[in-house]
Amino acid sequence: VSVETAGTRAPVRDSVEFARIAAFTDGVFAIAITLLVLSINVPPDLPGSQLWDYLVDTWGQVFAYFLSFAVVGRFWMTHHHVFSLLDDFDQRLIVLNLVFLSLIVLIPFPTELLGDYGTRTVTVVLYAVVVGTASLLNWAMVAHARRAGHLRPDAHGAARRVSGGVLWSAIVFYVSIPIAFVGAGAGQLFWLILLADVVHRRR
Amino acid sequence: VSVETAGTRAPVRDSVEFARIAAFTDGVFAIAITLLVLSINVPPDLPGSQLWDYLVDTWGQVFAYFLSFAVVGRFWMTHHHVFSLLDDFDQRLIVLNLVFLSLIVLIPFPTELLGDYGTRTVTVVLYAVVVGTASLLNWAMVAHARRAGHLRPDAHGAARRVSGGVLWSAIVFYVSIPIAFVGAGAGQLFWLILLADVVHRRR
Amino acid sequence: VSVETAGTRAPVRDSVEFARIAAFTDGVFAIAITLLVLSINVPPDLPGSQLWDYLVDTWGQVFAYFLSFAVVGRFWMTHHHVFSLLDDFDQRLIVLNLVFLSLIVLIPFPTELLGDYGTRTVTVVLYAVVVGTASLLNWAMVAHARRAGHLRPDAHGAARRVSGGVLWSAIVFYVSIPIAFVGAGAGQLFWLILLADVVHRRR
Amino acid sequence: VSVETAGTRAPVRDSVEFARIAAFTDGVFAIAITLLVLSINVPPDLPGSQLWDYLVDTWGQVFAYFLSFAVVGRFWMTHHHVFSLLDDFDQRLIVLNLVFLSLIVLIPFPTELLGDYGTRTVTVVLYAVVVGTASLLNWAMVAHARRAGHLRPDAHGAARRVSGGVLWSAIVFYVSIPIAFVGAGAGQLFWLILLADVVHRRR
Repeated sequence: VSVETAGTRAPVRDSVEFARIAAFTDGVFAIAITLLVLSINVPPDLPGSQLWDYLVDTWGQVFAYFLSFAVVGRFWMTHHHVFSLLDDFDQRLIVLNLVFLSLIVLIPFPTELLGDYGTRTVTVVLYAVVVGTASLLNWAMVAHARRAGHLRPDAHGAARRVSGGVLWSAIVFYVSIPIAFVGAGAGQLFWLILLADVVHRRR
Repeated sequence: VSVETAGTRAPVRDSVEFARIAAFTDGVFAIAITLLVLSINVPPDLPGSQLWDYLVDTWGQVFAYFLSFAVVGRFWMTHHHVFSLLDDFDQRLIVLNLVFLSLIVLIPFPTELLGDYGTRTVTVVLYAVVVGTASLLNWAMVAHARRAGHLRPDAHGAARRVSGGVLWSAIVFYVSIPIAFVGAGAGQLFWLILLADVVHRRR
Repeated sequence: VSVETAGTRAPVRDSVEFARIAAFTDGVFAIAITLLVLSINVPPDLPGSQLWDYLVDTWGQVFAYFLSFAVVGRFWMTHHHVFSLLDDFDQRLIVLNLVFLSLIVLIPFPTELLGDYGTRTVTVVLYAVVVGTASLLNWAMVAHARRAGHLRPDAHGAARRVSGGVLWSAIVFYVSIPIAFVGAGAGQLFWLILLADVVHRRR
Repeated sequence: VSVETAGTRAPVRDSVEFARIAAFTDGVFAIAITLLVLSINVPPDLPGSQLWDYLVDTWGQVFAYFLSFAVVGRFWMTHHHVFSLLDDFDQRLIVLNLVFLSLIVLIPFPTELLGDYGTRTVTVVLYAVVVGTASLLNWAMVAHARRAGHLRPDAHGAARRVSGGVLWSAIVFYVSIPIAFVGAGAGQLFWLILLADVVHRRR
């Protein structure tokens, strides 16, 4: 029992342990975002005219690349923000963080699918499930940090706003799932609501 | 002789050297865990109905991905815990750490194998050999740190418990090898004992 | 409104936040530069004589690898230099940094294209667009940092010089685009102007 | 001229700049060593008996993986040691470091070649050229640091020993090139001299 107690609350903000968790998380984000480029393929040995046609056809892969770069980049910025609000953490937060990361790391898979099969409903559904669930886990991390008292005293307002933002993300992606059954393109267009939200908040 | 003496005990906990070893190790963990996604393949140019069938068939790859993510994530948490118990380190610990990492980095290979050929005995054996040996090397690192006096004065109890945990992991994976010769699925189910253990310790 | 104010100027040079942004950026650079090696392919099962012919043919891939390593390495050195001039940063700088990184991470794609199809105009154009735009975004980051007052008091001279250097890079790559329509090789040779510049400044 | 003077000697051991260079280098090492696993291939859709035969045939790839893991790990340990001897650095050392890293990052290519075509002379030659030249550049870095006065006052003895070690590595790999023309296996066996050396120094 004392083990669990010792492991539950011990490490604090400025410790080596906190720095290592942040560094590991940043590393995973950095790699996941960089692996996205592997979803753009270069086929060997195409003759001149076919190369041109091929590159025109890769626009879907390039679009999927930039979309997922924006999505992962946004998650990283939010994570960065959430960690700056913490005073303290516990083992459950580390585990939640790992589960969250397991979905971030998965993103190159639906991205490649989106680049190759962007007009299929199943592709849009899979993308929305992965990104929506990652948002939900992000929300769960903030909720746990609030409930377990790991926030800095002055960070409760900021945490509430972050919490609202990621929950909104999750809702938009989940709602796009039934829409994608009507039309794959409509499901993707629905994601633009999040962009509108960013533009709105900036004003 | 003086070289070896100089290199054997010099760096301590708060040194740049210790930070670099931790950072390198975290980097390797972060990359190995992120490369796991590459074991999920997206084939180009499938017609509509075949894409659906294909994605249903990838459940094995997705399962292998999450399994290995949990395995590598767990190794990282243990490593993180072990390093927080150290006061000091020597060249042998760095070498043991590298040998341990060479097995962690290898994990994407049996993972891909498990995703593609999860019902074959040879696959389960290979997975168990790699993960079991990684656990054993983890145990060897803790054992060396204890014997060579690199632990913090207050860390002996925690080190004994970590030591027991990784040894137990190694035993479960090694014992699953003969079981896999009876049935590949039985070998994989046997690994769940470790999960039961986690659940038990949480209570 | 207070959120935006709080998020706009808060983090400073020695904060954990600044360190995480630098670490994330370094991580992305490190991975992008390392993924370049994946653009060199090894085909399985070639008989003896064909292996030799194949390796002779990979010189284009090896050349493209070293070129892009130099390009990404140079960008990293510049970025490193720019960050050493900062006193402070804001959310817009983080976003500009992410957009800039989205082009750095893309570089393995035109690199692989250059290695496989180095004699085609479209390849040289794509390479120049990606690297030229990355240079332009680098310039935009420095310009924003100067305008928004995020530079260290003594860093204005250095910032002006860095600014000039990256703008010059952007111009050279953009000008190589029309040249590549005359001849793919001529477009690539034009890039050597940047090398001449480095040699000149060293004297 | 003042630019160069400003950029030549400014950053020192405990600066953010030094930390970023070390972190970037560690990141590149960590990724290069982790990408080695990609040289082990898993072919899809093999029937039962062929999978077994296939895995027996991968022993060459697994051997190449562990060899290169040891090589890159050794380079990292040496680099780590060299950086712990520095007091200071200049732009030339950063450039030498990048050129050195461009060969480290290349190692997965000859590794994959060695795994697939280990019995061919050209493979052994390429591996020896890349690793030998990396050793030579490592030597050049130490030589420059000594000549330009960037070493810690008490580090000259250690630097001389490191210098000798990496030069010896370079010589062994270069000498293995003519030997590989006699026999590919003989060239690879010759590399074991370095192992003997490690064993000898340990005593």
